[in-house]
Amino acid sequence: MLDAPAPMTDRDARIDRLLLKEEVEAFNAAYAAALDELRLADWAEMFTPDGFYVVISRENHDRGRPVGLIYCEGRGMIRDRAFALEKTSMFAPRYLRHVVSNTQVLGVEANGDIRARANYVVLQVLFDRPDATLHQLGRYEDVFRRVDGELRLLSRRCIYDSLLVPNALCIPV
Amino acid sequence: MLDAPAPMTDRDARIDRLLLKEEVEAFNAAYAAALDELRLADWAEMFTPDGFYVVISRENHDRGRPVGLIYCEGRGMIRDRAFALEKTSMFAPRYLRHVVSNTQVLGVEANGDIRARANYVVLQVLFDRPDATLHQLGRYEDVFRRVDGELRLLSRRCIYDSLLVPNALCIPV
Amino acid sequence: MLDAPAPMTDRDARIDRLLLKEEVEAFNAAYAAALDELRLADWAEMFTPDGFYVVISRENHDRGRPVGLIYCEGRGMIRDRAFALEKTSMFAPRYLRHVVSNTQVLGVEANGDIRARANYVVLQVLFDRPDATLHQLGRYEDVFRRVDGELRLLSRRCIYDSLLVPNALCIPV
Repeated sequence: MLDAPAPMTDRDARIDRLLLKEEVEAFNAAYAAALDELRLADWAEMFTPDGFYVVISRENHDRGRPVGLIYCEGRGMIRDRAFALEKTSMFAPRYLRHVVSNTQVLGVEANGDIRARANYVVLQVLFDRPDATLHQLGRYEDVFRRVDGELRLLSRRCIYDSLLVPNALCIPV
Repeated sequence: MLDAPAPMTDRDARIDRLLLKEEVEAFNAAYAAALDELRLADWAEMFTPDGFYVVISRENHDRGRPVGLIYCEGRGMIRDRAFALEKTSMFAPRYLRHVVSNTQVLGVEANGDIRARANYVVLQVLFDRPDATLHQLGRYEDVFRRVDGELRLLSRRCIYDSLLVPNALCIPV
Repeated sequence: MLDAPAPMTDRDARIDRLLLKEEVEAFNAAYAAALDELRLADWAEMFTPDGFYVVISRENHDRGRPVGLIYCEGRGMIRDRAFALEKTSMFAPRYLRHVVSNTQVLGVEANGDIRARANYVVLQVLFDRPDATLHQLGRYEDVFRRVDGELRLLSRRCIYDSLLVPNALCIPV
């Protein structure tokens, strides 16, 4: 906090926590926009080089089973997935919209890593169907790391409530 | 505002209002997490000892009819409900997810009580059904009171839009 | 920033950006409440005199086609629509609820106009149907202008994902 010359007050500390939460919310809004606009290469760059990304059912997560619907260790695997999806359109055309809410910053580790969570709802409109549907819902369990001053995901676990996924889950959440 | 030694500016006042709104949002996120994780005893503790909790239809609320689907006067009644629900699983297993949005701080009373509102959507996944459904939606009309520095609900009215509630409404919203 | 006597620090700038985002969020919450409570005259006053309001499909927007489901140039047209809807109840009675999320302030123009966006979901409950449905979802692409210190919409584009609109779209989004 080089900017604060005077001793840190409780109010200053609350403001700093709020600024951090705002950073996380802005990150999540940009993340959602990248996916909604199918900018998957941009999405992949939101992780650290050793970033971890998993989409796992709430049931498996609660029972400590690590197996997930999508499992990526490292940005290389994340980029591969983004590239494959952008180059091969093997799924029916659709619009997606991510609604992210209930964002919470849970804590900051000694090394500066930030633990956070949020709820997500992904709404889907298939091009050949008139109505929107609830595609997936759940929560993000995240660890953010600051890289060159910007937040990046060291780890995002998308823990979904719905037990079956309509169609294939082709697009990240 | 003991923390502010200099005269309060308009900008300081806006920051304080924002800090208060953040407190309410953080409360609502913690409230939602307690319900989504079925930590009902934790949920009950988020009310003041004389806390009021009602779940009422928009139609009844608009016509001034006080009757609600759930009606609790005092934390004792709220704890009873939480205890009964935790000890008797008389309802089909399900996952719930609360999405709270559009939070507004409407005003602060002379005694420090805070009037606020927010929209809520409760999404539900039954274990034996693959798809998520809209379980309930509506708005919270709240009065918060500070107890030992922490926000507690002196009153929460959950005013739901949907006229029928799928299955029994077993779990608070 | 007349309130800041000392040189503007990076932290001050971040606080100012946060205060501006809060203003936009508060505006959107008030806008949603006006529509949910069918206070359409209040809704119309949230635009500048030359305010622009359009509801357009994502498909048409993406292809540069200007045609929209609703198209209003100027607050006069917006008021006309509000007046017509309030005086003629030609549609089935229903409750609506707007969930606004993922608010982003994209930039501030040299003349002070503010570019912003947000996601919206409109949920609907028809009086003669028990269940809530997803009425419309999409994003707001906005330009705000400050009038007498208060934010007003110089332009709001409601770009919806869903291709067909259940029933007539009688009420603004």
